[in-house]
Amino acid sequence: MASQAPISAELIAEHNDAHRSASDSDYSALGEQLARRGLDIEKLTTAARNFSVAIPSWGVGTGGTRFARFPGVGEPRNIFEKLADCAVIQQLGRATPTVSLHIPWDKVDDLGELRDVATGYGLGFDAMNSNTFQDQDDQNQSYKFGSLSHSEAAVREQAVAHNLECIEIGQKLSSKALTVWVGDGTNFPGQQSFTRSFERYLDAMKAVYAGVPDDWKLFIEHKIFEPAFYSTVIQDWGSNYLAATELGPKASCLVDLGHHAPNVNIEMIVARLFQFGKLGGFHFNDSKYGDDDLDSGSINPYQLFLVFNELVEAERRAPEKFDPAYMLDQSHNVTDPIESLISSAVEVQRAYVQALLVDRAALEGYQDENDVMMANRTLKTAYNTDVSPILAMARQRAGGAIDPVIAYRKAGYRNAVGKQRPASRSSGGGIV
Amino acid sequence: MASQAPISAELIAEHNDAHRSASDSDYSALGEQLARRGLDIEKLTTAARNFSVAIPSWGVGTGGTRFARFPGVGEPRNIFEKLADCAVIQQLGRATPTVSLHIPWDKVDDLGELRDVATGYGLGFDAMNSNTFQDQDDQNQSYKFGSLSHSEAAVREQAVAHNLECIEIGQKLSSKALTVWVGDGTNFPGQQSFTRSFERYLDAMKAVYAGVPDDWKLFIEHKIFEPAFYSTVIQDWGSNYLAATELGPKASCLVDLGHHAPNVNIEMIVARLFQFGKLGGFHFNDSKYGDDDLDSGSINPYQLFLVFNELVEAERRAPEKFDPAYMLDQSHNVTDPIESLISSAVEVQRAYVQALLVDRAALEGYQDENDVMMANRTLKTAYNTDVSPILAMARQRAGGAIDPVIAYRKAGYRNAVGKQRPASRSSGGGIV
Amino acid sequence: MASQAPISAELIAEHNDAHRSASDSDYSALGEQLARRGLDIEKLTTAARNFSVAIPSWGVGTGGTRFARFPGVGEPRNIFEKLADCAVIQQLGRATPTVSLHIPWDKVDDLGELRDVATGYGLGFDAMNSNTFQDQDDQNQSYKFGSLSHSEAAVREQAVAHNLECIEIGQKLSSKALTVWVGDGTNFPGQQSFTRSFERYLDAMKAVYAGVPDDWKLFIEHKIFEPAFYSTVIQDWGSNYLAATELGPKASCLVDLGHHAPNVNIEMIVARLFQFGKLGGFHFNDSKYGDDDLDSGSINPYQLFLVFNELVEAERRAPEKFDPAYMLDQSHNVTDPIESLISSAVEVQRAYVQALLVDRAALEGYQDENDVMMANRTLKTAYNTDVSPILAMARQRAGGAIDPVIAYRKAGYRNAVGKQRPASRSSGGGIV
Amino acid sequence: MASQAPISAELIAEHNDAHRSASDSDYSALGEQLARRGLDIEKLTTAARNFSVAIPSWGVGTGGTRFARFPGVGEPRNIFEKLADCAVIQQLGRATPTVSLHIPWDKVDDLGELRDVATGYGLGFDAMNSNTFQDQDDQNQSYKFGSLSHSEAAVREQAVAHNLECIEIGQKLSSKALTVWVGDGTNFPGQQSFTRSFERYLDAMKAVYAGVPDDWKLFIEHKIFEPAFYSTVIQDWGSNYLAATELGPKASCLVDLGHHAPNVNIEMIVARLFQFGKLGGFHFNDSKYGDDDLDSGSINPYQLFLVFNELVEAERRAPEKFDPAYMLDQSHNVTDPIESLISSAVEVQRAYVQALLVDRAALEGYQDENDVMMANRTLKTAYNTDVSPILAMARQRAGGAIDPVIAYRKAGYRNAVGKQRPASRSSGGGIV
Repeated sequence: MASQAPISAELIAEHNDAHRSASDSDYSALGEQLARRGLDIEKLTTAARNFSVAIPSWGVGTGGTRFARFPGVGEPRNIFEKLADCAVIQQLGRATPTVSLHIPWDKVDDLGELRDVATGYGLGFDAMNSNTFQDQDDQNQSYKFGSLSHSEAAVREQAVAHNLECIEIGQKLSSKALTVWVGDGTNFPGQQSFTRSFERYLDAMKAVYAGVPDDWKLFIEHKIFEPAFYSTVIQDWGSNYLAATELGPKASCLVDLGHHAPNVNIEMIVARLFQFGKLGGFHFNDSKYGDDDLDSGSINPYQLFLVFNELVEAERRAPEKFDPAYMLDQSHNVTDPIESLISSAVEVQRAYVQALLVDRAALEGYQDENDVMMANRTLKTAYNTDVSPILAMARQRAGGAIDPVIAYRKAGYRNAVGKQRPASRSSGGGIV
Repeated sequence: MASQAPISAELIAEHNDAHRSASDSDYSALGEQLARRGLDIEKLTTAARNFSVAIPSWGVGTGGTRFARFPGVGEPRNIFEKLADCAVIQQLGRATPTVSLHIPWDKVDDLGELRDVATGYGLGFDAMNSNTFQDQDDQNQSYKFGSLSHSEAAVREQAVAHNLECIEIGQKLSSKALTVWVGDGTNFPGQQSFTRSFERYLDAMKAVYAGVPDDWKLFIEHKIFEPAFYSTVIQDWGSNYLAATELGPKASCLVDLGHHAPNVNIEMIVARLFQFGKLGGFHFNDSKYGDDDLDSGSINPYQLFLVFNELVEAERRAPEKFDPAYMLDQSHNVTDPIESLISSAVEVQRAYVQALLVDRAALEGYQDENDVMMANRTLKTAYNTDVSPILAMARQRAGGAIDPVIAYRKAGYRNAVGKQRPASRSSGGGIV
Repeated sequence: MASQAPISAELIAEHNDAHRSASDSDYSALGEQLARRGLDIEKLTTAARNFSVAIPSWGVGTGGTRFARFPGVGEPRNIFEKLADCAVIQQLGRATPTVSLHIPWDKVDDLGELRDVATGYGLGFDAMNSNTFQDQDDQNQSYKFGSLSHSEAAVREQAVAHNLECIEIGQKLSSKALTVWVGDGTNFPGQQSFTRSFERYLDAMKAVYAGVPDDWKLFIEHKIFEPAFYSTVIQDWGSNYLAATELGPKASCLVDLGHHAPNVNIEMIVARLFQFGKLGGFHFNDSKYGDDDLDSGSINPYQLFLVFNELVEAERRAPEKFDPAYMLDQSHNVTDPIESLISSAVEVQRAYVQALLVDRAALEGYQDENDVMMANRTLKTAYNTDVSPILAMARQRAGGAIDPVIAYRKAGYRNAVGKQRPASRSSGGGIV
Repeated sequence: MASQAPISAELIAEHNDAHRSASDSDYSALGEQLARRGLDIEKLTTAARNFSVAIPSWGVGTGGTRFARFPGVGEPRNIFEKLADCAVIQQLGRATPTVSLHIPWDKVDDLGELRDVATGYGLGFDAMNSNTFQDQDDQNQSYKFGSLSHSEAAVREQAVAHNLECIEIGQKLSSKALTVWVGDGTNFPGQQSFTRSFERYLDAMKAVYAGVPDDWKLFIEHKIFEPAFYSTVIQDWGSNYLAATELGPKASCLVDLGHHAPNVNIEMIVARLFQFGKLGGFHFNDSKYGDDDLDSGSINPYQLFLVFNELVEAERRAPEKFDPAYMLDQSHNVTDPIESLISSAVEVQRAYVQALLVDRAALEGYQDENDVMMANRTLKTAYNTDVSPILAMARQRAGGAIDPVIAYRKAGYRNAVGKQRPASRSSGGGIV
């Protein structure tokens, strides 16, 4: 199976030609303004260009809820079609060079072929994701009452074996990390012992950890609720930190922005985890109510900026320890997933570049003097700056499109694959 | 298709014989205590016996989440099997004499047969539930972007027609109410105009309302989020009240305990809706985080009591206006749905009987004097009373089981239907 | 008592001279970009200049919590000193020409003098605020257990009389509105009857309403909790709407951004209230947890934009009905209140101008077609635009400062009044 | 200063005589029922009698909010009067033999006298509480911008010295613990560096820790918000655990039930902290919205039961490590504080005794089998049991009153002290 750039270079070039004049003008004006503020736009553009965030393979399909799933046109039916969609996202946006696989959804017989196809698209593989929150047809034990924390050893062993298999697959694909998120938890007080469940979870995770190669990372993801509705085994960063600490240095904590209790200060959790050496990475998305998995920056873009403010600060503070993994983790129920992923990567990149604008020496001085107004204003000035011209320039220079969503629409990709990929019959749902 | 009591009368009798002595002893002791408090246990037992709450037909199946559904043994495959399960619940618990249907899930060719089967079980039909939150195979228009509030007239018309069909079916089954819950809403700021969407919703609902028979009720259900994650068209009781008021006297508001923002005082909403003539009824369940659809009273039983405290007070205040509809609306993901529905009906009944214990004359006096401590204590004294003996006696006298879950297990019903009803192959999920 | 501009015109002029070149350059570049987007920067600058938001008199003092209040330097000791501080805010920021008084805190013997002093500063009076959430020394009845909803008639009558007095004072000051916020509510289930309390509240409010002049407005403010912690008599917009509707056309609902349950979609409430003719106005602030009364736009600036998106849309839809009142309502615990109020007014103005950038014809088209991505992007494009140059130009043209906080610091006002106004001895708090 | 029992033994005896017959009858009936369930009521009564929870000295005064404080009759004006009130609570309720002091509020010249007075009342001293969230008149440095985490060393040193002084005082009073809660945090993004603040906090706490005697404990209290509204330095149990771990074995975490984000599963946090050796103790209260400090068990009594379910389980699991400190921490704004504290101690005791009823062997079996229904029912059966007769008997046997609130009212204590203690003039508040 050959892979080649799904969008023609000509189309991108034409698009950029049409938008270049306005884009250059905005870039030039912004450059002048930033220079007055002591900032070099070229350095920022380079930083933007070097920024990347992984695409989850499942993100290019249409999502849904327990009530319904409304399929989109031309949904990818397998990992090869998913890779093609990811290639489109990367070709136009140039911020998403890697794909994060989910096993068994993306399992194939020939891993070499999978690797070659990805390479052909210029794509690499990010963290592997295991799945012990669903039952597969060929599975002996059910995860209905838990997986790594299940009361029965046989279930835990099956879950451990599955995670080890994910590592094995990942090694063949040059992945360097395993992300473990479990649905384990309870729906009723008394259903399980919090303590015994966590002990079993830790025991099982130690078996997984033992299989993590030395140059790999093990990311643990916490989530306050769903699919379990009374308790979850890794409910917050506190339990996540305990688990990662019990396991050892290869284990660290993954922060999904939608997995916290209402009102929680997430940027502070980011700072704490980094301070204590356990910030593994992020699943980016946005939410208003629960784990809504909405597009990054679509509900509370300032929060996303504040998260990156901590990240830029963390890198400045201890560059040698700074290596978080970034992934988008969104559910696209009412948009074309390709469009959402393209523009979400832009929003994450935007927050990063805005955070780079913060005058950190000044900020630190204001903090030391308790000049609260100016400290806050230092952040707001950075945030209020419209860095769109920088992002457009970074894309353009990397071979992408000035306005990637518009270029995507122009390319007619969705309609084209719509003809090649028959609509899935099942619309799911009814799981009320 | 003949219908007869699924559980043998002998089994129930044996069960009760075995438990009667202890039960009678507890009942007698409680009666003495209540007499000292000026309460007649016999009146309370009669009230408990007269209490009922409807079972939703879909509640007897195993629920799930967008992540997965783990099927149970012997799940009912159609409305006739669902009715059999409902008959078990009613036979043992004696608090659930009606079933609430969902169209098209429960649609059958021969409504007369359906009615006869239900009658054979001693079951009646509660409110009809329409479904415009999913697409059906035979449907021309998609509800992906809304139904009654959709921007296109054709979609709205289809949704109106479906609701009218539900009424038509319900009339043949002697139902007397239609419950309208829509999944309409948005996932992104800007996706829809809040105002225009609500205008379209109201227009479409007026067409539905026009088809509501004079002796029927139209219940509108609000929900803050899910499946829409940025806004919903009937997001809270405020919008619900506006809609019900715009429509007219047959329309009123339905309160699902899990459909509110965190921390909201639901019992107060109950009081307000009744005061302003728009309290239609309830979907009972419990929740800790979102619309968790957990078993009634399993997370916050005192809140359930406080709701019934308002209901008992409302009936006392204006008995002629008091006629709310009660239904359980739960998702049973990790329990046998029959067991959960039996015991949830008991919990709702428990809250009702506890609320009957409140010394309302004393309470009113304490409120007038701002004797806060004694006012609160008046509620707590009622709530702390263990009314289990009253509930057991009411069941026993009505022909049910003293301990209906234990009797159900003894009857071996689940295993029996497990043999007759092959497991559903699809475990759903993967709609992440 | 004479009043004159507290900040010298020369200082402002010097400040502007120093910042003009950069400011003009940014304004020019933005003008070019907006012209390409079909927008006239001059119209936007005029709109910004015409925008205003009232200052609450109590906002210029340092706030606190039940735990402590840490006084600032040179806090105003009476309404005349408060007016001087408000004059500074208006002189530099030019977006806050009116002051909202609080009775009895701002009560004076000579209202004519008060009016003259305000006029001398170029300030007018916005809505009057009554206070029935505290007991005053000269008061016969206590509000410990409520005011307008109290169980005793004498307390309600005192509260009504106080509100009527506020109107009387306001009439002499050319105010045109009364804002009624009460602390009434309960801390315990059972403490009061929700229904009887609301009946009493409505009765008392009818007496207040009867005293509202025909050319006045009566604003009702809802709040979910604090100072009452189990229930409040006007807990949300639903109860607020009911009250305003019961009272009549002069009554409408006031939305304080910090007075809602977690996660609630406030912009939707704004749309609903306007649609049903009951949007009275706003108390602007920001919050992360409760009624935090933080600076507007300091926590979730996108939400503030979305609120103004609804307001701009409302005005477009029905300009004849559009007349909301805007006030800042913040508690400045760790900043100089003058600085916070200056910059908060800028943030509110910023959200307004950003909302003016939304291409509403395009938005409506995308909404009709359910082009969710482009609809959302239409909002985000407007929001991402840095409109700071427009705000600076509007201020400059109106006689204010390009960077009003910097100009304020340069003027040395705080230190100057610090010498004239001895520090308050009491630091409050200890009310744990 | 002599101290003697404030309530006459005759009054208590008369009260008990009047209530004994009914109480004995209920006790006997409950005993029979429990015997059928395999439980020995006498053992439970003994356990109830051995249970105790400390009273905070400040709890006997009337609380308030930033809006107002409405003084009560006969409020204690100093620690000696507070001790008298605490003596009343203990005399009647017999569950609160210790008092927790707050420095400097309870500072006296003669600690020996204080100790003697307490001993005279039969009262001991629980944990000492330091105060670095307010400025005192004699203080050199202000805590406006923090205390133990302040950016300036002089402030931190002052805060450390104050904590060391609290220990010193406590040693003279035979206290064995210091509770450190700080108001440190921020109101604005950027105000402080999360990381540097926490580093400074840990440094300062190490200096405090060095002064903690070997037989003392150091309790750290976390709180998500208030008085700081954007971030707090110890915002949750995660940061609390990190701090307690950094400090050493004498340090552990204190859980205040009202200090968490909405929806958070607190009982699970209790389990985690115990499992990892850092559960220090509790501040009991209840809340619906924020840190409402309402009476224990008044809003969500089932949650209180679930917390004690974890505690009873923890003691069973590792009795040698089980030694949590219990204190009531409530703000009594609308009730007589003595009545609230008496009845709150009863509610905490009630939850404890209910938790003792749980059949733990059966529960563990159901958990192992994933019999969710029966596991949950095992808890609910215990919770539904009305253990009031056990609590009354335990009180009676210990010399207290069967119905302590009624006995208190009969004694006329409040009116008596009302005559001796002039009303405080200041009603506080106005700190909006």
